[in-house]
Amino acid sequence: MNNTKDIILTGDRTTGQLHLGHYVGSLRSRVQLQNEYKTYILLADVQALTTHYDQPALIADSVHQVTLDYLAVGIDPDKATLFIQSMIPEIAELTVIFSMFVTVNSLRHNPTIKTEARDRGYTDLYYGFLGYPVSQAADIAFCKATLVPAGEDQIPHIETARKLVRRFNELYAPVLPEPRMLTGDRLGGLDGIGKMSKSMGNSISLHASPEDVHAKLTKAKTDPARIHRTDPGHPDICPVFAYHQLFRKEHAEEIHASCSQGSIGCRDCKRIAGHAINDLLAPFRERRNAYEQRRDDVKEILVEGTRQARQVARETMLEVREAMGIRYFDL
Amino acid sequence: MNNTKDIILTGDRTTGQLHLGHYVGSLRSRVQLQNEYKTYILLADVQALTTHYDQPALIADSVHQVTLDYLAVGIDPDKATLFIQSMIPEIAELTVIFSMFVTVNSLRHNPTIKTEARDRGYTDLYYGFLGYPVSQAADIAFCKATLVPAGEDQIPHIETARKLVRRFNELYAPVLPEPRMLTGDRLGGLDGIGKMSKSMGNSISLHASPEDVHAKLTKAKTDPARIHRTDPGHPDICPVFAYHQLFRKEHAEEIHASCSQGSIGCRDCKRIAGHAINDLLAPFRERRNAYEQRRDDVKEILVEGTRQARQVARETMLEVREAMGIRYFDL
Repeated sequence: MNNTKDIILTGDRTTGQLHLGHYVGSLRSRVQLQNEYKTYILLADVQALTTHYDQPALIADSVHQVTLDYLAVGIDPDKATLFIQSMIPEIAELTVIFSMFVTVNSLRHNPTIKTEARDRGYTDLYYGFLGYPVSQAADIAFCKATLVPAGEDQIPHIETARKLVRRFNELYAPVLPEPRMLTGDRLGGLDGIGKMSKSMGNSISLHASPEDVHAKLTKAKTDPARIHRTDPGHPDICPVFAYHQLFRKEHAEEIHASCSQGSIGCRDCKRIAGHAINDLLAPFRERRNAYEQRRDDVKEILVEGTRQARQVARETMLEVREAMGIRYFDL
Repeated sequence: MNNTKDIILTGDRTTGQLHLGHYVGSLRSRVQLQNEYKTYILLADVQALTTHYDQPALIADSVHQVTLDYLAVGIDPDKATLFIQSMIPEIAELTVIFSMFVTVNSLRHNPTIKTEARDRGYTDLYYGFLGYPVSQAADIAFCKATLVPAGEDQIPHIETARKLVRRFNELYAPVLPEPRMLTGDRLGGLDGIGKMSKSMGNSISLHASPEDVHAKLTKAKTDPARIHRTDPGHPDICPVFAYHQLFRKEHAEEIHASCSQGSIGCRDCKRIAGHAINDLLAPFRERRNAYEQRRDDVKEILVEGTRQARQVARETMLEVREAMGIRYFDL
């Protein structure tokens, strides 16, 4: 496989600001990949509607906030194309076309849909919520993406995208490439229970202040068996140790030993992890502050990126119509 | 209610040519309504995909054939706007938006979806097939239609459209009108079993030749209790008598009496019905032949109609985005 031709599509639902879990899971690799590959980054406001259709103001505000988060972590608008999903009508068109040859049951059996529905307490699913993987397939197909950096929970969706693209190519003509996935690291939440997630309240925002970072860590769960400072700890089950491994890798072994021996207390350990996270976040905060002063420029980045994405979408859609034999005429 | 402001949306799936059932059920009233109301007529090639996604060539050909049928029966392109569904991306966008607040179960319980699925032998429904009523709601909403002339089987779909529009207006802002239905007459098939339907093979095409019409009627079922020409008939259960009622209304009472008395035979009765149908179809055939010679003009009618519909769709979509608070900027 010739990776030099890879096209990348990735993005986030605009339902709030991004956190460290997003960074570790996907943003970090995007910042690298944008240097090598054509990269499309989607502000998924339509997919935000699948769970937040009754909170459009939050979605609209998040488009701006997530864009700031992207720019803060180092997404370079001169390299990556940032665009707003709802402004690419061709994504909706492809969603509708793909929906013709995916069954309701196959969507119902999608493990991520099932987990999400359970976690959100949905019994009677909304039609659009069930169709999330179809919509995601359209996101990937419109720009002919071949590589999708995303979290592990997206594996079933990418599998659906691969099937839909293959089916389209079989039915009509081979115009859409099959995407591959690139999974990032998984970051546990501060509660030591699930993955880091804003809705679980166990996350550290990408623009938390230095004090916030330390405050959040202070409240983080650690090894519950460790009562006294000198008790030997079990770092492998401690969420804070996981942060050491990710954000202070070069010293992680040392921390592992100190904790296991009971020679470092949780408070100090958290303090050190907090500094490491703050070192990571410092340049993000700076860039975010700078962009916050330039609201018009940020908007212009989205206007320009959306315009570019739309041009690509139009071209793909013409090929799609040609393949299906329904390119009656061009308007 | 002020009917003078009604906007009409109607149309047909492009899965083959139209027949007398379509004429009686909807085309006849459209020809009248176009004189009084702004009328949009949809060539529903996307909805054709819900059952014919693997036959795009048939769908594309039918777009042309159904357009000829429309022009043949007297749809006037200077009065009505004829357009191709798949070329209005805003319909797909509205379909996706509406899909956020309609549940899978409410669609599963739609009686027409259930009947259609059963008749077609579908067990595992395609997602797009299940979403048919959502897509139809979008057809109606994009042009702010208030009146939808359609067959009785569409009642549940229009009910869904009304609910979706109401829900949208409640959630965001009142920009979409609630549509009403206008049901036409129901025409029974030649087999005396169900309604006239191409897939049941019991229909008379709108451009059947005079000989075809008579040949079809010759084979039509009549009162099964009537064995001999002089047996008294039961016209009220005879499909051919129904044609007399619809196409030769002024003499229907007379035929009813003759049949009941056994003073007219089925053969003669069918002959007379055939003449009446041929009288109806004669000007349709003539117009169709004329338009068949003008392929470029027919295409131009669709280009122009689609362009008009798209302009209206763009305006509605801006209002929709404005209502939802996601009109970030205009491209």
